[in-house]
Amino acid sequence: MIEIIAFDADDTLWENESLYHKAKDELARILSPYQEPDWVSRKLDEIEVSNLQFYGYGLKSFTLSMIETAAEAVYGKIEAHTISAILEIAKRMLSAEVVLLDHTEQALAQLSPDYDLMLVTKGDLYEQQRKISRSGIDYCFKMIEVVAEKTPAIYLDILKKHHIEVERFLMVGNSLRSDILPIVAIGGRAVYIPNENTWFHEVPEQEDVEGVEYDELEHLGQLPEYMAALERALD
Amino acid sequence: MIEIIAFDADDTLWENESLYHKAKDELARILSPYQEPDWVSRKLDEIEVSNLQFYGYGLKSFTLSMIETAAEAVYGKIEAHTISAILEIAKRMLSAEVVLLDHTEQALAQLSPDYDLMLVTKGDLYEQQRKISRSGIDYCFKMIEVVAEKTPAIYLDILKKHHIEVERFLMVGNSLRSDILPIVAIGGRAVYIPNENTWFHEVPEQEDVEGVEYDELEHLGQLPEYMAALERALD
Repeated sequence: MIEIIAFDADDTLWENESLYHKAKDELARILSPYQEPDWVSRKLDEIEVSNLQFYGYGLKSFTLSMIETAAEAVYGKIEAHTISAILEIAKRMLSAEVVLLDHTEQALAQLSPDYDLMLVTKGDLYEQQRKISRSGIDYCFKMIEVVAEKTPAIYLDILKKHHIEVERFLMVGNSLRSDILPIVAIGGRAVYIPNENTWFHEVPEQEDVEGVEYDELEHLGQLPEYMAALERALD
Repeated sequence: MIEIIAFDADDTLWENESLYHKAKDELARILSPYQEPDWVSRKLDEIEVSNLQFYGYGLKSFTLSMIETAAEAVYGKIEAHTISAILEIAKRMLSAEVVLLDHTEQALAQLSPDYDLMLVTKGDLYEQQRKISRSGIDYCFKMIEVVAEKTPAIYLDILKKHHIEVERFLMVGNSLRSDILPIVAIGGRAVYIPNENTWFHEVPEQEDVEGVEYDELEHLGQLPEYMAALERALD
């Protein structure tokens, strides 16, 4: 029987990647006097991934990568207000309202009487805590974990810390790489809810997913019914 | 009787602020074609503090503030390689070796047979975890907590999570604001070990410290003897 349902946050409970898409488009526009939009988009992707080893995930990392893209986009000099405009994008994103996905509130309300709900989110501690407290749904979660990476070892640490056996645990998320594969690897259950905006870096190679057992739902609104069916099957 | 000793990390166990001082000097040098060093230093301080609300603590925040300082330092255009040079400072700092302060290793070795040691560090999750794992002393700590802020409420959460009564807990650190005042506020014991490089933002107003009870040591090497004396006094 499942007793704890853990949720990823960004693009599982609330919108996130769409903000990054908008920021990317805005960067391309800001740098259009220097480079084609395609060049900017490609270069930013490349710099972001290569900077993960230095900066980790999150909006500050993304902003430093936008600045690095700008420095590479120009030959010679860059307008100071171009730099300021990029910093403004970051501050606007950090102050943006948290927009819950459809079904989020209802699904949490339906599940919380029967399960202990947990939030497991990857990224920048300060930024994620800010979003959690502004989301208006933080009270639904009995446990909240912000982690730097979502690896099998880190999930095992979380389970150990909260004295949870993996058989009692189910993880829900939009990233096969971060929310599904590591949980299945440690013998747990996972429910994949794809989001059209998932960051390309979160999409694993096809061969890493082949044969991996997990269930897929279209949206979070289907989770309560899925849980009911699962409990009947496990009974 | 004290059972758990918690340590701050940056500038308590290892050097940190000195890296920021060097970076600040380097920024002043990089921006010297545009502004006086004093202007750069003052402006950076100002921008850093005003950016805390957006970015929180840590090296990525500091780097974004250096970039913002650069954008304000110039009128009109800035050399792209000036921006690149600032980003290089950040990457060098993030890759820098962790330099333990004198006495750190010895004090931890002397204390760890008799106490459960905990690390409580504020800042960027990814960055702090990287430093902890590179420090070579992570195995000394039974518990490690990276937090976004060090407030009385957050210390209470940590104590609750680990089922620690405040009477059994002692906190050691170099920041009156983050390591000493909040612990005394929740009825706990704290040992202050000043560090000449402590960031000005960590220094509280004089009136906030008046009448507050804590002990002060010159360096971490004195802590084992201090603990022995404290245990005799509490006995």
